[in-house]
Amino acid sequence: MDELELEFELDPRLAADCIHIGDFPLCRLLLMNDANYPWCILVPRRAGATEIYHLPEEEQQQLIHESSFLAENLHDIFAARKMNVAAIGNMVAQLHVHHVVRYESDAAWPAPVWGAVPARPYSETELYEVKHKVEVILNGALALNRAS
Amino acid sequence: MDELELEFELDPRLAADCIHIGDFPLCRLLLMNDANYPWCILVPRRAGATEIYHLPEEEQQQLIHESSFLAENLHDIFAARKMNVAAIGNMVAQLHVHHVVRYESDAAWPAPVWGAVPARPYSETELYEVKHKVEVILNGALALNRAS
Repeated sequence: MDELELEFELDPRLAADCIHIGDFPLCRLLLMNDANYPWCILVPRRAGATEIYHLPEEEQQQLIHESSFLAENLHDIFAARKMNVAAIGNMVAQLHVHHVVRYESDAAWPAPVWGAVPARPYSETELYEVKHKVEVILNGALALNRAS
Repeated sequence: MDELELEFELDPRLAADCIHIGDFPLCRLLLMNDANYPWCILVPRRAGATEIYHLPEEEQQQLIHESSFLAENLHDIFAARKMNVAAIGNMVAQLHVHHVVRYESDAAWPAPVWGAVPARPYSETELYEVKHKVEVILNGALALNRAS
């Protein structure tokens, strides 16, 4: 484990807004506590990174590997109309990549989700169900090897 | 050149909203005709792709390679506060990745740019200047090799 990984701490705002599901080889996997959309966030566990290009090339390749694995599985498990994948970070500087499952019937369609409608926290039952589905994706990734 | 590359045609809405700057090994490089923000779009020249994970793994790696090269250079040449990198595609299905240079003083900060304010087309003088800067980035990428 290198120094930047040892020094990694999740941004407090991400920690407050999300549920920690587990870890891919590079990224922490979070679930946004917003029942409007199934919405996961990947956070590379590297201190100080705020842009994708701050990561070394082999970690960028691992990031897109984990991101595509997550996006495809979210798409299939939640029967998405479209996946929205984005690294924005104007408010939370720590590099994090949104993966939002979109439906034509959702609260913001066809606009992007950021700032569209207030977050609606999951009920306990809803959370149990969605969290389980995302955990199944993560468990399916146990065979995922570092691309590097 | 494989079949999916031969069959590639730029989506008409992207063609109407953007200026074609040139081509990276995988992606077409477009400049959005919106003077509110320096805003480039990468479109992998592969027919039928609507999600990043639709590309074969080696093309995904080439995509992040070109994306990071573009993002870092846009950041430096335009002195960005933050780069916003996103594949959304709710309205234009063809896979395309936004690279938006953001400033704390811009028209939408800190919100994302989509739907924030109407596009303001460049004047001829503005376009000449911005286009030149983006062309310099593309020319600097002549040495860019396929990651695959």
